[in-house]
This record gives sequence, C-alpha cells and structure tokens, in this order.
Amino acid sequence: MYLMSYINNTPISPFYVMEILEEAQKIERKGKKIIHLEIGEPTEEVDSKILLSANKAISSKKYKYTNSLGILELRTRISKDYKKKFKINIDPDRILLTTGSSAAILLSILTATKKNDEIIIISPHYPCYPQILKILGRKIKIFNTYEKDNYQIDIDELKKSLTTKTKALIVNTPANPTGVSQSEEVLKKLCKLKIQIISDEIYQGLSIDYQVTSILKHNPNKPIVVNGFSKLYSMTGWRLGYIVLPVKMVRYAQKLQQNMFICAPTISQHAALSTFDISVNEKKKLINKYKKNRNFVLKKLKDIEIKFEYEPDSAFYIFCDMSKYTNNSLNLCKEILNKVGLALAPGIDFGKRYKKFVRISYASSYEEVKEGMNLLSKYLKKYNK
Amino acid sequence: MYLMSYINNTPISPFYVMEILEEAQKIERKGKKIIHLEIGEPTEEVDSKILLSANKAISSKKYKYTNSLGILELRTRISKDYKKKFKINIDPDRILLTTGSSAAILLSILTATKKNDEIIIISPHYPCYPQILKILGRKIKIFNTYEKDNYQIDIDELKKSLTTKTKALIVNTPANPTGVSQSEEVLKKLCKLKIQIISDEIYQGLSIDYQVTSILKHNPNKPIVVNGFSKLYSMTGWRLGYIVLPVKMVRYAQKLQQNMFICAPTISQHAALSTFDISVNEKKKLINKYKKNRNFVLKKLKDIEIKFEYEPDSAFYIFCDMSKYTNNSLNLCKEILNKVGLALAPGIDFGKRYKKFVRISYASSYEEVKEGMNLLSKYLKKYNK
Repeated sequence: MYLMSYINNTPISPFYVMEILEEAQKIERKGKKIIHLEIGEPTEEVDSKILLSANKAISSKKYKYTNSLGILELRTRISKDYKKKFKINIDPDRILLTTGSSAAILLSILTATKKNDEIIIISPHYPCYPQILKILGRKIKIFNTYEKDNYQIDIDELKKSLTTKTKALIVNTPANPTGVSQSEEVLKKLCKLKIQIISDEIYQGLSIDYQVTSILKHNPNKPIVVNGFSKLYSMTGWRLGYIVLPVKMVRYAQKLQQNMFICAPTISQHAALSTFDISVNEKKKLINKYKKNRNFVLKKLKDIEIKFEYEPDSAFYIFCDMSKYTNNSLNLCKEILNKVGLALAPGIDFGKRYKKFVRISYASSYEEVKEGMNLLSKYLKKYNK
Repeated sequence: MYLMSYINNTPISPFYVMEILEEAQKIERKGKKIIHLEIGEPTEEVDSKILLSANKAISSKKYKYTNSLGILELRTRISKDYKKKFKINIDPDRILLTTGSSAAILLSILTATKKNDEIIIISPHYPCYPQILKILGRKIKIFNTYEKDNYQIDIDELKKSLTTKTKALIVNTPANPTGVSQSEEVLKKLCKLKIQIISDEIYQGLSIDYQVTSILKHNPNKPIVVNGFSKLYSMTGWRLGYIVLPVKMVRYAQKLQQNMFICAPTISQHAALSTFDISVNEKKKLINKYKKNRNFVLKKLKDIEIKFEYEPDSAFYIFCDMSKYTNNSLNLCKEILNKVGLALAPGIDFGKRYKKFVRISYASSYEEVKEGMNLLSKYLKKYNK
C-alpha cells in the first residue's frame, strides 16, 4: 500500500524525540551521563573562518535589515557554487535567504500551493512536514517508500496516486530519518511530473557513498529547492537557509518573506559567506568522520542482529526496524534511556507506520557513537529478549 | 463608519513603501543623495554592551539550537523587567523567544485563533497584519480609529462590532503609523472584552510624552503580548522578538515554534541579555533625541500648514493628511522623491482609507530629519499648489 490517507484535522503532534531529550536532560541534571544519539544536530565545530566573518560583521555594523531576498553577495556565492558543482545557471535573484530551512519550507509551501491543495509527502518523513502542512491548511497525502526498495520512490506507483487535486510533492534527499539519497533516475522522473516538486536538500554535501547531487541538475528551472547552512556547516542556531525558486514564483515568495519574516538574520548571512572558503580537504575530513561513524554503527547493528535491508548512504541517520524487540519503540527508547543512559529517536515521529523503528543519529563524535552503540548492545543483551 | 468589510481573498499586497525605497536606491546608485524618512528602522547605534555579548557568545560557542522557548536566562531577565517596570509577575515559562516580532505575530495568531476565525485589526494599521491574516486563512475585520479622536479606539463602538465569529483583536500600542499610544483607559477596557487581545508592543519604551506601559498592567494573565529588541535597541537584523502568553497557550505555541522555527537565533538571544544592562540615563538620551526630532517635525508641519489634529506621543512616526496636496499620496511620494530627493511612506500601506496620507519616520538623526523636512517644504512651495 503505497498511499495512505491522512487525518488532516488532527491537532499538532508533539515531537516525541523531544520527550526523550527532556527526559534525558532530567537524568543529566541528577549527574548521570547520557549518550545522545537522538538529535539531528551535528556536534562538529563551526569553522573558524565562519566565526571570524561573524565577528567582522559585528565590528563593521552589518546587522541592520537586509534586502528581503538577502544580501546579494551571499546569493551570488550560492549561485556560483551551483555552477561549479553542477554546471547549472541559477540567477542569484532566484535565491531567497531564509530564517533556517524551516522558514524555507514554510515559504515554499505557501508559494507553490493554495489552501486545501493536496500535497504529497514521502514516508518515512521529517516530522515537521505534516505539521507545517496542517498549520497552513494544506491537505496531506502520504506516499510510502520501503526498506526493501532502499526507500526509493516508486515513480510508477506515485503516478497512479496523482489526482487533479495533487499540486505538489515534498521530497527530502538525502533524507531524514533514513540517510538515503533518491537516485538520479528518481530525481529525473520527479522533474517530469506535472506537479510542483519541493526538494528539501538540507543534507546536501553530506553524502558518504553517493555523489553530491541536486534535483536542479535534471531541471534547473522548475523544482523548488530548500537548503541551508545548519547541517553541513553545523550552523544550527544561526538560523540560515535558502530557497531556489522558479523565476515566476520569486516575486510572490518575496512578498511573503517581507510580511512574515522581513529578512533572514543579518550576521548569519555575512558569516555564511565564509562557508564557500572551506577547502575541499576540510570537507573530505568531515565526510570521512561521518563514514567512520556510520560504518561502526552498521557493523555493530549486524553484531547485535538488528535486521537491516537498506543502505544509508548519506547524512547522519540510520533508521532501524526494532520489531524483534518491541511493538512500541517510544517505550523502548524510554527504557533504553533509563536502563543504560542512551537516547535514541522513536520511529513514530517519522510516520505512523514506524512505531517499531528507532532512528540512530551518528552526528556526534566517534567516541560517543561507539559508546552509544555499546550501550545499545548492553541493553539488548541484559534487559531485552 | 467604524467598521469596514475586508476582501479576504485579495492577493498579498506589495509594500508600497518598498517601491519608494527601491526607487530611492536607484536614484542613489546614480550618485544623488536621498533623505530617508520612509523606513521604520532606527539609525541609532547598537549599544556596545550588546555587541560585546554577541562576540562573547561566538567565542564561547553559544550558537547551537536552544530550547524552543529560548534560553531561560533571557526569559528570566524579561520577566524581571516586567516586575520592575509594572510590578507584575510573568513566569519566564510564559515567555517564548521568537525570530523577530514578525514570528511573534505569526505564532500569536496561530495560537489564539483557528482557520476562518474573524480577527479585528485597528486601522490605520501595520501593513503586515492583514497580509499575515490572509496568509494564515483568518478573516479580517477592520475597525477604524480617527485623527479627531487622537486615534483612540472607541470601545463602545468596538463592542457593537463584535459577533460570535470574532475571536481576537490585534492592537499596536504605541502604534505604527501614527506614533500614538492607546490610553490606559482603553487598554483596561480591551482586557475586559470576551475576545483574545493580541497587544503588539514592539515600540514599548519609545514613549516621549507618555509613561511606558503594557496591557499586561491591567491583566497580566489574559492578553497575548508581542514585543522584541528591534526598535528600542535598534537590533533590526538580529531578528529577535518574544511573546508573553497566557499559561494555557504556552504548550501549543511551543509546538508551533518547534515545527515552524525550531528556535530564535542563538547569538541574538545571548546578545540581548545586555539590553537589560543599559542605564536609565542612556535610555533617556535616546528618548530626548526622538523628542527633539519629533518636535522639529511637528513645528515644521505647522509652518508649511499641514493640518494636524492629533498628538503623536511615542515611537518615531507621524501620520499626515496630505489631502490638501494630493488625491493619491503614492504618486505624491514618488514626485517628492524625484523632485527633491526625499523618501516618505505612502499612506495606502496602512489602510485603504489613507491614500491621501503620508507617514514621516523621524528615526534618523536630527540633521537628516531637519534636511528632510526642509526638502518637503521646498517641494510644496516650488512644485505643488
């Protein structure tokens, strides 16, 4: 069953991972150590060049409102980067700098669709998508992908599910919570659909076994792309993202930005200029770190016989079926936290079908990841089964 | 006619002041000087204590995601400030730090009302209110105030306009574009209405002839208050605001924040701590500067016989009826800009009834304000009438 109906009038759900995080913090306040593999926040240091640029922005008084699209200098650098990486021309005036990729998602949906339009999201999905769609009064259609298919979108099945009411589709590639990239073939076919594609590429650049890509390679003019500086450059609290828009949508998106946000944080805009001065070698080092972390997790999962049928090629997540151990992974996560001090994200956050799954984030240091996986192993041997 | 219907399905309007600003920038690129009295952005310097705290946040790596409500330290300082200024207790957990007051307005509306609920805005109004309400699918009801009443809300008339569909009212005090504060009497009566009041107090602290106040003085528990650091502390590009919420609304607003914004910019949160270390004397200096600017504008308006029936007591705006000179102040603004190089905001941005008005912002330096008013005088003598 690829397609699932969705109750649109359900209230906004909490993030269950936040419940785990809050419980973890309670335990930490009592002085006990917790290993955090539940949150999608890189623990990498922000590059010193970025910090220097932030300081420079402050000392040169660059902290007033900017143009609502954002400073031209940064939009030009982003444009040049698309040219360099993918040989495509993206006019800087098609780029709108946003308050994190969160605001980029909001603006994309508001720009591309109307109230009551039907929008497809791919499950398992980033927890915020259905919530944001509910908040904005859009109708949600869930399209499932499966572990056996390496979580690739089955385009033929997808086509069957399109109706005249379907106006857009949000795809996240590389994806949270699976760490999987959609293949070039899938991206190409998505571009050919007669609905607006919103490609959330916030994990772009964090590909381990996969060449860095963008849906814009296959059609530089039609898809909306969401991206930002939080994940690749660990600039989470800086709240800076961007949207690449089709020409005809720019003016409307800009009006939304003026009314809803005015502009993205100015110091962050100036600091982000330096992300383009980070060398290829430094970036490789980061990817190698993630590769080492991921490979360790995969090996350990095999050791503890957690069944695994797909290849997490990117970003820093692995999504595991824990049905062998539980019918309710939220309870399992709470128990693992309390028994051995390891925090994991419960699958229910990523779709109703995943209440027996957990998401492991390997965005921490190798030592933390190693210790966390050992704790998981310890828990399963001692308390479960 | 106090009440005006509003076409809810009109598209998002542009900011007409942006058209003026863009035209002004075009002229500036040709090397001509423009005096900017059109934008609501203080040209005051950001206090060095704030800048120091921003630098300290960067050097001590305080730039990761924060709690979705924001850092407790800043929420506690805000809470203490309410206690000190108004002798009221606001639990820090009722304060949610937002990405500018823009996000605070968005979250307030989403928290307090449902789709299709009717919300009253007071005209003349901040241009974004109706646009945001349209974007969020709320119904807009315009309630007029009049210059002859010093733009005070006539509560008896307002009561007559309430229906079972009316769920909330947004009041901006001190107000953009009039620079007028609602009286304590009005605030008190607003608190007694059976609808949710959202009091946008972003210009709080910029009172010239009026004691600094808040609707929370009259009922600390029921109204939603929007505030921020952009106007009083000139921290515009830092994108930091906050909401004070009734206890029962906090959880829902926090869930919205998690899904839509994650958290407010972290460096700005830490920098804003220092706003509470700015001395009373320094604040007085600022108010005296604005007082001098305002008084100059008022005197000059009298000199050039622009009719004027109200008292702009706060903030940095004066809203002038220019019907003596024009039927269309957008055209007038364009002409003034092109003929003498002065930029003003056209009244149409603040409500359909105001297309013969202009807004003068005296947030610039005294010299600029003086030069601007002389240019206006020159224009009226030479080109008009």
